[in-house]
Amino acid sequence: MTDQITLGRYLFEKIKEAGVNSVFGVPGDFNLALLDHIKEVENLRWVGNANELNAGYEADGYSRINGFSCIITTFGVGELSAINAIAGSYAEHIPLIHIVGMPSILAEEKKLLLHHTLGDSKFDDFIQMSEKVSGKLKVLTNLESAPKIINDLIETSILTKRPVYLGFPSNFSDSLIPSSTINNLKLNLKFSQNIKTDEDEFVENIINLIQISKNPIILVDACASRHAVTDQVNQLAKITKFPVFTTPMGKSSFNEDSDEYYGIYVGELSSPDVKELVESTDCILSIGGLLSDFNTGSFSYSYTTNNVVEFHSNYCKFKRATYENLKMNGALINLVSKLLNLNLNFENKFKPPPSKFDYQSAKICPTGPLTQDYMWKKLSYFLKENDIIVTETGTSSFGILSTHFPKNVKAISQVLWGSIGFSLPAAVGAGFAADDLKKFDPNHPERRVILFIGDGSLQLTVQAISDACRWNIKPYIFVLNNNGYTIEKLIHGPTESYNNIQPWNHQIILDLFANKASYESLTVKTCKELDDLYNCEKFNNPDKIRLIELMLDEFDAPETLKLQAKLSDKINSA
Amino acid sequence: MTDQITLGRYLFEKIKEAGVNSVFGVPGDFNLALLDHIKEVENLRWVGNANELNAGYEADGYSRINGFSCIITTFGVGELSAINAIAGSYAEHIPLIHIVGMPSILAEEKKLLLHHTLGDSKFDDFIQMSEKVSGKLKVLTNLESAPKIINDLIETSILTKRPVYLGFPSNFSDSLIPSSTINNLKLNLKFSQNIKTDEDEFVENIINLIQISKNPIILVDACASRHAVTDQVNQLAKITKFPVFTTPMGKSSFNEDSDEYYGIYVGELSSPDVKELVESTDCILSIGGLLSDFNTGSFSYSYTTNNVVEFHSNYCKFKRATYENLKMNGALINLVSKLLNLNLNFENKFKPPPSKFDYQSAKICPTGPLTQDYMWKKLSYFLKENDIIVTETGTSSFGILSTHFPKNVKAISQVLWGSIGFSLPAAVGAGFAADDLKKFDPNHPERRVILFIGDGSLQLTVQAISDACRWNIKPYIFVLNNNGYTIEKLIHGPTESYNNIQPWNHQIILDLFANKASYESLTVKTCKELDDLYNCEKFNNPDKIRLIELMLDEFDAPETLKLQAKLSDKINSA
Repeated sequence: MTDQITLGRYLFEKIKEAGVNSVFGVPGDFNLALLDHIKEVENLRWVGNANELNAGYEADGYSRINGFSCIITTFGVGELSAINAIAGSYAEHIPLIHIVGMPSILAEEKKLLLHHTLGDSKFDDFIQMSEKVSGKLKVLTNLESAPKIINDLIETSILTKRPVYLGFPSNFSDSLIPSSTINNLKLNLKFSQNIKTDEDEFVENIINLIQISKNPIILVDACASRHAVTDQVNQLAKITKFPVFTTPMGKSSFNEDSDEYYGIYVGELSSPDVKELVESTDCILSIGGLLSDFNTGSFSYSYTTNNVVEFHSNYCKFKRATYENLKMNGALINLVSKLLNLNLNFENKFKPPPSKFDYQSAKICPTGPLTQDYMWKKLSYFLKENDIIVTETGTSSFGILSTHFPKNVKAISQVLWGSIGFSLPAAVGAGFAADDLKKFDPNHPERRVILFIGDGSLQLTVQAISDACRWNIKPYIFVLNNNGYTIEKLIHGPTESYNNIQPWNHQIILDLFANKASYESLTVKTCKELDDLYNCEKFNNPDKIRLIELMLDEFDAPETLKLQAKLSDKINSA
Repeated sequence: MTDQITLGRYLFEKIKEAGVNSVFGVPGDFNLALLDHIKEVENLRWVGNANELNAGYEADGYSRINGFSCIITTFGVGELSAINAIAGSYAEHIPLIHIVGMPSILAEEKKLLLHHTLGDSKFDDFIQMSEKVSGKLKVLTNLESAPKIINDLIETSILTKRPVYLGFPSNFSDSLIPSSTINNLKLNLKFSQNIKTDEDEFVENIINLIQISKNPIILVDACASRHAVTDQVNQLAKITKFPVFTTPMGKSSFNEDSDEYYGIYVGELSSPDVKELVESTDCILSIGGLLSDFNTGSFSYSYTTNNVVEFHSNYCKFKRATYENLKMNGALINLVSKLLNLNLNFENKFKPPPSKFDYQSAKICPTGPLTQDYMWKKLSYFLKENDIIVTETGTSSFGILSTHFPKNVKAISQVLWGSIGFSLPAAVGAGFAADDLKKFDPNHPERRVILFIGDGSLQLTVQAISDACRWNIKPYIFVLNNNGYTIEKLIHGPTESYNNIQPWNHQIILDLFANKASYESLTVKTCKELDDLYNCEKFNNPDKIRLIELMLDEFDAPETLKLQAKLSDKINSA
């Protein structure tokens, strides 16, 4: 029998092969037999989350750092608790596999009125609900087809950057297949090539266009990092010396210390000098654009040029013409390669706008209470190369736009889906990924995880801190205590009680969850205190989990957020 | 303009008319304008929950006491976070309205790429997901039809005992309609009458059957209380003197102090004397049956009689014959009335089985560590008339079957849907209902809310305690500290690490959430300590929120649960 393995083991061997070392989720009786097999795969850990929504968010955060992740829930109750997180991953192009432990095939055939059903003896309701938020969805129905289906789901997720769903009936966990299947069915994670003639024509058009343009720019958006073309974008900028702007969702996709980096474009909400530069260009190379409201200053883009080239994961556009199925990955490699061969002499004609250096005003620490303005600019000096910075939708995701990032800092924020509470578990998930990468590759740099979240958002998902403590994951958790949902107050109802929250005693959160883990809780009330903390060597060392409560005025908020809030209220009431 | 009101106000006037005084939910920018109007309705409070899943569970618990409830979430992120709770309400026949604040009609027409969308400019994905778990679902599209749609949804929910979904585009919140609509469109909450000839024939058949039967019994299940026929069942038992058994989901639907109450029937898992009585009967009147696995000892009912009469909310059955659309409510009223007129002389031929009095063994307090056996039986003496007892799926929902209930005790447990973490917010929601009922009716008795939840389940929804503290709701929270998911350990993998949890310092939970509310945290390690606590007068007075940690052995569990666990594992692996 040694030449056979269980299907459960096969599944986890493939999860491991896809680069996953930590599996998120919550046990439930329909997945217990499957969970038995995780320990059979070397270096694969079962995280065991406090709840499913957090497990989903953590898997999302893990994937944003690691490139892929896995969450396991149980039929009905478990999968539906996680579905908002999965929807977020779908909206934001995050690849992961959601494995749902289902009742046995026999129970389904007999139409047993099991617990975790709607009481109608139907077993496909939840699958249909997940279909809306899955790149691909399959339920195993027989053993023979199972290994190929598992491979296909993982490959689809990684190549298309969407979550996929695998329904795994409990009776299959211990079913046997030949051991050789593991090696015979290797994952195929290579992108399919573009049609060469399409790609060449598209690239030629671009080369012709940029040579006759006077002041072209590159605009880097969300899908540049999601679909992993940031290296090509960097090369393109180095060759052409075109000014590079990022959107809010594109922030951290381009080295902000480089000469080519010019700042963030958010339509109406941009700095005036950035707005001027972008809107007077005669050619835009747009990479991975995702034009959502919070990413565009409520759709207030107002450049005038028609010379826009769009690079997307599954199509490209040259001005008004669409190249169906042309993937930006291949197109950018082709473009960079041709430009290198042509050896054109591009000149850097402009200087970065003064707003790029705004953050430097935080070198001088003001007296008085802590302010959002100081906090976000000063953060530029606390951040180090390779840090992971996670910001919650709200004052944090807008405030971070004022922070200057050192090289290789990775920013995580859920700007499109915008589910409050996401950032805490996402930071914990990112922490698991950083931990795994370092653990299994000694050359991998240590990556600190630094989270900024509001007191309101923290309440939704607070038990994610327990997940971190359980495995000694050590993020910096900065809690912005501004007495409620400040972003909502700015949008509508500033004095309405529905935007208030129950005040918590944040200083004892870690006492509740940390058990014997090493931890520290701090409070910061003034700019000076923050400055001192950032200058403290011990504080800079991520050797324990830390919760830093930042006391802020209720209505203090980044200017961009104040403007965005007014635009949102207008759209909602129109 | 005084003869006009906003549609937002109209909605909340109707919510209030349906008997709701507390509205659950979380604010989000697409529902803020709607929330403005809650305060315009007298005695309607916005609870403001820490997260949406808890809001959904609290609404469910509120409805189980109050008869109807309301939860408000925001588009996409909010509604999907709550959807598991709504699915539970659907499965378990709990009426409530889920109001979702949606983007404005104009934003939808323009296909704007708003935040909280999947990035595809589609606005109906989430509606289709909710359709599976809603008795009825409507999205407002124009002002004229809106008031009637609102009424129809509330009426449908209350009459069919299912959750309904109302999509409320943000732009309608302030739209004006005539004030007179409030009085002109009153809710119609009367059941439609059964077809008289059907009902009469069904009732005549029953009367003939029970007169020729030797030992008929009444079996009371979940839908008896859900569809509010417990008074009729009590009358029926008083007249006929037939022995009454309840299922696990039917427990608390019948006065356990009455002579007719004989115990709980759970198939194989029943006490042998109960099993003997039920399975040797020659006629069963089954009221509101819901034959799920955990409610039937994994489908191990084994009575032999074919003389079964089934009463359901939307049909009835006499032996093999179905009466479509015949509602049990009318049928039971008719049956009771005819029996009273006939004045038949039913005799009580049997004596209650000895197992009915098992709980009395707890009068003697054993020495040594606290045990599940003692705990559940002793609880019979702590409970008082009108108490609300909430138990989590797991050792608690099985343990409570050993507890004897005083009159008018109401039991809440999610036996069919079985979502772990449900019971804590459900208890808080029930607490809000008890608070509202007492506040607005001085004659209403004070009802204590008593929760039993495991340490594993508590972790999923712990922030519901914050919601309670915010409004001074004062449940007794008994936390069974048995070091992880004991129910899962019994089903599968007793020593597997995936059934363990991060240990929490339960004694400081209330310090975190309670702020200035009055509270108390306690620990109980021995039977004697529990006995002393129950005998303490101060402890009996529900004047503060209390968390009582019960230290229990990891594998101590009610016998019924141990048996059920084995049956479940067998079904899952078949």
